[in-house]
Amino acid sequence: MRIQIINGPNLNILGKREPLVYGTQSFDLYFNELTKLHTSLELDYYQSNIEGEIIDKLHEVGFEYDGIVLNAGAYTHTSVAIGDAVKAITAPVIEVHISNVYSREEFRRISHISSSCVGIISGFGLYSYNLAIDALVKIKGDK
Amino acid sequence: MRIQIINGPNLNILGKREPLVYGTQSFDLYFNELTKLHTSLELDYYQSNIEGEIIDKLHEVGFEYDGIVLNAGAYTHTSVAIGDAVKAITAPVIEVHISNVYSREEFRRISHISSSCVGIISGFGLYSYNLAIDALVKIKGDK
Amino acid sequence: MRIQIINGPNLNILGKREPLVYGTQSFDLYFNELTKLHTSLELDYYQSNIEGEIIDKLHEVGFEYDGIVLNAGAYTHTSVAIGDAVKAITAPVIEVHISNVYSREEFRRISHISSSCVGIISGFGLYSYNLAIDALVKIKGDK
Amino acid sequence: MRIQIINGPNLNILGKREPLVYGTQSFDLYFNELTKLHTSLELDYYQSNIEGEIIDKLHEVGFEYDGIVLNAGAYTHTSVAIGDAVKAITAPVIEVHISNVYSREEFRRISHISSSCVGIISGFGLYSYNLAIDALVKIKGDK
Amino acid sequence: MRIQIINGPNLNILGKREPLVYGTQSFDLYFNELTKLHTSLELDYYQSNIEGEIIDKLHEVGFEYDGIVLNAGAYTHTSVAIGDAVKAITAPVIEVHISNVYSREEFRRISHISSSCVGIISGFGLYSYNLAIDALVKIKGDK
Amino acid sequence: MRIQIINGPNLNILGKREPLVYGTQSFDLYFNELTKLHTSLELDYYQSNIEGEIIDKLHEVGFEYDGIVLNAGAYTHTSVAIGDAVKAITAPVIEVHISNVYSREEFRRISHISSSCVGIISGFGLYSYNLAIDALVKIKGDK
Amino acid sequence: MRIQIINGPNLNILGKREPLVYGTQSFDLYFNELTKLHTSLELDYYQSNIEGEIIDKLHEVGFEYDGIVLNAGAYTHTSVAIGDAVKAITAPVIEVHISNVYSREEFRRISHISSSCVGIISGFGLYSYNLAIDALVKIKGDK
Amino acid sequence: MRIQIINGPNLNILGKREPLVYGTQSFDLYFNELTKLHTSLELDYYQSNIEGEIIDKLHEVGFEYDGIVLNAGAYTHTSVAIGDAVKAITAPVIEVHISNVYSREEFRRISHISSSCVGIISGFGLYSYNLAIDALVKIKGDK
Amino acid sequence: MRIQIINGPNLNILGKREPLVYGTQSFDLYFNELTKLHTSLELDYYQSNIEGEIIDKLHEVGFEYDGIVLNAGAYTHTSVAIGDAVKAITAPVIEVHISNVYSREEFRRISHISSSCVGIISGFGLYSYNLAIDALVKIKGDK
Amino acid sequence: MRIQIINGPNLNILGKREPLVYGTQSFDLYFNELTKLHTSLELDYYQSNIEGEIIDKLHEVGFEYDGIVLNAGAYTHTSVAIGDAVKAITAPVIEVHISNVYSREEFRRISHISSSCVGIISGFGLYSYNLAIDALVKIKGDK
Amino acid sequence: MRIQIINGPNLNILGKREPLVYGTQSFDLYFNELTKLHTSLELDYYQSNIEGEIIDKLHEVGFEYDGIVLNAGAYTHTSVAIGDAVKAITAPVIEVHISNVYSREEFRRISHISSSCVGIISGFGLYSYNLAIDALVKIKGDK
Amino acid sequence: MRIQIINGPNLNILGKREPLVYGTQSFDLYFNELTKLHTSLELDYYQSNIEGEIIDKLHEVGFEYDGIVLNAGAYTHTSVAIGDAVKAITAPVIEVHISNVYSREEFRRISHISSSCVGIISGFGLYSYNLAIDALVKIKGDK
Repeated sequence: MRIQIINGPNLNILGKREPLVYGTQSFDLYFNELTKLHTSLELDYYQSNIEGEIIDKLHEVGFEYDGIVLNAGAYTHTSVAIGDAVKAITAPVIEVHISNVYSREEFRRISHISSSCVGIISGFGLYSYNLAIDALVKIKGDK
Repeated sequence: MRIQIINGPNLNILGKREPLVYGTQSFDLYFNELTKLHTSLELDYYQSNIEGEIIDKLHEVGFEYDGIVLNAGAYTHTSVAIGDAVKAITAPVIEVHISNVYSREEFRRISHISSSCVGIISGFGLYSYNLAIDALVKIKGDK
Repeated sequence: MRIQIINGPNLNILGKREPLVYGTQSFDLYFNELTKLHTSLELDYYQSNIEGEIIDKLHEVGFEYDGIVLNAGAYTHTSVAIGDAVKAITAPVIEVHISNVYSREEFRRISHISSSCVGIISGFGLYSYNLAIDALVKIKGDK
Repeated sequence: MRIQIINGPNLNILGKREPLVYGTQSFDLYFNELTKLHTSLELDYYQSNIEGEIIDKLHEVGFEYDGIVLNAGAYTHTSVAIGDAVKAITAPVIEVHISNVYSREEFRRISHISSSCVGIISGFGLYSYNLAIDALVKIKGDK
Repeated sequence: MRIQIINGPNLNILGKREPLVYGTQSFDLYFNELTKLHTSLELDYYQSNIEGEIIDKLHEVGFEYDGIVLNAGAYTHTSVAIGDAVKAITAPVIEVHISNVYSREEFRRISHISSSCVGIISGFGLYSYNLAIDALVKIKGDK
Repeated sequence: MRIQIINGPNLNILGKREPLVYGTQSFDLYFNELTKLHTSLELDYYQSNIEGEIIDKLHEVGFEYDGIVLNAGAYTHTSVAIGDAVKAITAPVIEVHISNVYSREEFRRISHISSSCVGIISGFGLYSYNLAIDALVKIKGDK
Repeated sequence: MRIQIINGPNLNILGKREPLVYGTQSFDLYFNELTKLHTSLELDYYQSNIEGEIIDKLHEVGFEYDGIVLNAGAYTHTSVAIGDAVKAITAPVIEVHISNVYSREEFRRISHISSSCVGIISGFGLYSYNLAIDALVKIKGDK
Repeated sequence: MRIQIINGPNLNILGKREPLVYGTQSFDLYFNELTKLHTSLELDYYQSNIEGEIIDKLHEVGFEYDGIVLNAGAYTHTSVAIGDAVKAITAPVIEVHISNVYSREEFRRISHISSSCVGIISGFGLYSYNLAIDALVKIKGDK
Repeated sequence: MRIQIINGPNLNILGKREPLVYGTQSFDLYFNELTKLHTSLELDYYQSNIEGEIIDKLHEVGFEYDGIVLNAGAYTHTSVAIGDAVKAITAPVIEVHISNVYSREEFRRISHISSSCVGIISGFGLYSYNLAIDALVKIKGDK
Repeated sequence: MRIQIINGPNLNILGKREPLVYGTQSFDLYFNELTKLHTSLELDYYQSNIEGEIIDKLHEVGFEYDGIVLNAGAYTHTSVAIGDAVKAITAPVIEVHISNVYSREEFRRISHISSSCVGIISGFGLYSYNLAIDALVKIKGDK
Repeated sequence: MRIQIINGPNLNILGKREPLVYGTQSFDLYFNELTKLHTSLELDYYQSNIEGEIIDKLHEVGFEYDGIVLNAGAYTHTSVAIGDAVKAITAPVIEVHISNVYSREEFRRISHISSSCVGIISGFGLYSYNLAIDALVKIKGDK
Repeated sequence: MRIQIINGPNLNILGKREPLVYGTQSFDLYFNELTKLHTSLELDYYQSNIEGEIIDKLHEVGFEYDGIVLNAGAYTHTSVAIGDAVKAITAPVIEVHISNVYSREEFRRISHISSSCVGIISGFGLYSYNLAIDALVKIKGDK
């Protein structure tokens, strides 16, 4: 079973960005942990700060993989184009957020992506990704 | 470890309500499954269609239990009072939804509860509760 | 043929509340008249000021009765939960109002219930209930 | 007792317009049925697609007839001028709609006419006109 | 002279809820103090987390008592039904708040109750109740 | 010097419509007075309840007359088409209203016509027309 | 193949209206050119400033012709009734505009007609009509 | 008959301000002309850039004079306090504007003063004041 | 203990302004009563119709006095500058209103001052000032 | 004559994306057809999912080519930057859409690009591009 | 070269107001520093809490000086009248703010003054004035 | 001291774009001038039309340089992601604009970047960059 994790803008500097708030762990280190936890799965990781490259990656894997975990970062709130890409592909996509986006600024309550995803997991730190993978395994199993 | 599941309005008729859409399984049956899956946890279940009774239950367990899984149903979108109750108590609360509320009517995008919860899990059918329990166990373990 | 009339908040003090405006007749007296007018029908009446109890009653009769006449009073404008209950049940529901709600305050123009009902009758005083019963009989006859 | 029925735009092609949705019965045929049902009443019928002609008709009958049943069609949502005409005349006017306008597009929830009418009946198919006539007879009787 | 104090949702856990912010005194203790301060008045106290029960209490005392001090808590911002109940009864009602609701979240600036009350007292801690009782005595004296 | 007065919907029943509010004088009578007062001017009067006929009249006189006094009634607030017609013609147009439209309903504050007119005179009863004629004479004189 | 061109308000004075902006060519002259260009088609032309007459014409030809080119002028932005008429008929309708309505006033961005049309062509001067006819021929050919 | 003209902010530099647009005539000169034209009236003129001084002047003359011509300039759009002052006094007040404020910026369409005035005259240059004086004489005569 | 009362625009004509509504008592007379009632306090009174003078007074007393009772009148709804002044000073400020501002026009529900005040007292006639003084004495005592 | 076609996000997977809706033809195949149809024109085609690369391409060809056909896809609704680029260049740009964007979600009615384009063609499937090319040829011919 | 600095409401108590936030330096002291730094310029300083006095000062210097540095404080967000004054005068005006007004409350993002100024400098503490003077010198030099 | 200048979309064609408006000088030439003026500073310049590449550059220099001058062009109004990047890094960022963005279209008043910047400088042509560099030197000196 192949699962693609896609991270959007500013998630490449996790560990370096306001470490008192976001912790000192980079996503690369966390991805290693994730891989070790799920040896029966093929997990891939991609990050880009460029909206169109996220769309490219969704197109690339979206007709092949068994599921996608997407944290589109700030593009969640502004990108109709990523939302369209999620809708266009056939793999199930789960939207995740590290923080609880609903307790932050008003404009972060708007998502152009949520309505095309299977579901949303938000607010559990990096563990949100873990829950999303469990959910994809469950969805696969239900079919 | 004690966890309380609280369900809000109209969730008592799951299995009976539009069965082609929501399935024929009642929440009571699903709760039995959940209990069997988590034998090391003390799981309690409460449902009410009355906003104030949900607040009463949150007060009752909110200073005692290790976590609460709350599906406030339609009150999610209208009840400032339940939001205040979640904020007032000390147990971590996770908001869950069976369907992906962000792909439904516009007014279901407003939540008065999300900002006081630890996190949100929405769209994974009844499995959303399972993920929420895992998250509470993780939160407990991190302390 | 069984029809349930459900009245929401503040309709229990009809006759006592601003009698110069609403008249001195209580709903109980009017219900007696209605019963006498429709001897071939089984008419039941229920009133509650509690949103959740109205939902409970809708669940109780909504899969059994031939029709429901619902005056949800002020909950019409605020209760997504009652709207969901109306949608969840199988009996046809008609929304009635004693006064013409569209000629009152702006916020009374919003209804969370109308879109799930068969139709709306508003502004004919207590006679609105009579018209609604006629409509339910007609609907039953058309099937 | 004289009652005028006034139909607004696009109601002249009932029976021809999307027959699977609106049925194959024209309003003229239905008006014949109505007339036969209410032999003690003098029923008149007028239809126009022109906003100003509807105003002309309201002026013509509005100081003479005992009541008016008005389905202003799409002008309901855009015509302040018809609303002013309803307000200017002395005959009681009842707003009717064939479909439940509150379960359709957002802009159909706005009515410039409702607040000047006695009441609203919406969603009972052509039977809405029948209910409106009953209500006018009742209003006449109460005076 | 009889005065009823009515408290809405979450006010039953004063003293227990965020004690660093709201203090450790429960409302019951404060009510004892109030009673001792006003021996010439008959003071009654009622609390409920259920919107409809607050309406029931308003109906019960609203045609009998000389005044009502109402802190509807979060229902202030969402309950048209309580606002209607305040309007329906004959006793003067004063809206009180412990905190200054106008310096909190935007949605707390909306009140469905204020326009039906005699006046508003907000922001003086528990002393707001004291000021409200003084105001009711003054209103009674002016008649 | 030729001046056209154009009246929109419902102004044909002045004198008949709510006589306690609008008086018992018809516009025809008032127009006679106006004509006698301004014997050196050629005054024409036209009224229609039909939006498009008002546009027709504007086209007809708008390239020939020295000025137009336009009371578009309720079309003031809804007709972009009349606004476009005013803009398209070359004669100066003055918007008049009998009542002060700015002290009535909120939606009467919106005008699609004002921005294409020379100026606005509102609130002086029928005398508003007199003032508008004076203004047109002044404008003509200034050229 | 029969195609009806329908023009709405103020399009009858093309050539006369702000000639520096709109040119000196009337639509009648342009229609002659169009007819000569498309000798294999039966082209009809109708113009009215009256909203309801445009609806009448749509009803008349809308179940017979092979296509309709509709420039509803300012009614585009205000007429729900024309939008309903377009939806009710069976001939494909193309919305055209001479100017680019999206670069003009804000309120011209709202169209009540677009969503019921096959497509929109806007901004190419009178040539917009030519493109619309080509599109109708193409649509006809695809069937 | 005594009439007070009150001018608000920036009207003191008429003649100096953008002379190509507003002309080179100061209001003082124009006031001289006005006085000569109306020798039977006692005309007074006051200007201030200070909102509160305009209120002071309205209080001073508002219970004594026969009418007030008020051009509140930009305070028209922002001052609830001047609106309240106009409402509080007994002399009739006419709102005037030199330019057509309805053809300028969107925010100039909002007036806090109009609803308390007898009427509005806008867009006729300095001649607007003349029309306002005529209207006050008319109002006085009608009493 | 020194307390400053500050009244804003139009409060200087209390007693003269709509006497049937606001009574015939001027604020000066009421202030005499207040002074006699609170002989142990040093009460000062200031009124201005000028926004900036109210700010000047707030600056003057705001670092010296023990409390301020502020009725900013209509400036409550428009003055960010007074709100900033209240925030800048150290004396506690209580916002008072004679009428219940929440039962009047919509725009009076907006306050730029409330969020910087200790609390609000609104709707008790002139007695509102009395309650505010009691509240300041209580606040002083609690320190 | 040189014409550049530019396609934005998700248009690269035409033929693969929801084939039942969008058909199985890729844009590359369609571009071949277009080229064959217009042998006298030099047609170039570019697609990118990256907003900034579309801007780069507009800069590259926008001062050289005779016209541009731009389908910016979802960026139409969110990209002020592409709108600025269209405005900055000298070649005429025509906005095209395959589907009728005005009959889809509300947010697709907003375009940041339309106001800088010559015109819009929307809703004719891939034939929209053909019409746009005809229009560019016409525009070129008119110069 | 003559430059006028104008400060609006609450800027007269800099140094005294929340000294931990705004520092203990008064603007008078800072103005001394500024004067010493720019010996070749004639710098004048004016402060008022009264909106109309700021307008008076703008009129006084606005046709004479070489430039104006304007910090209108809270009037920035509410005063259309000061905006009009800036527009009416001929000297270039630069809007300055000590704090970054765009990172504060939502309503501080609205400025009625910015659009009439040459430019805006915001967020650099008192140094903002220094930058504004440099900009005025630059503007003068460019002429 | 190292300072990075970052320019966003369409700023690469300065000098070429509407030269009558923006001048014929390219930014590269201006950057040469800037470098010569500030020989004691290390100035770097970067431009991209791609939102994500601007984020990449902010990450690259944002933890190393002494300050950043950011003109995000049209992304200022749409990019939450760049705003997040500015917030995530440690170097002070100054937002600059060549034109006064507050005197242009309404949507250009919204900035997702301003609140994370130290300050804003807008409207001084290319000299805005010079002022921003001065401000960064000042900020550095103050530490």
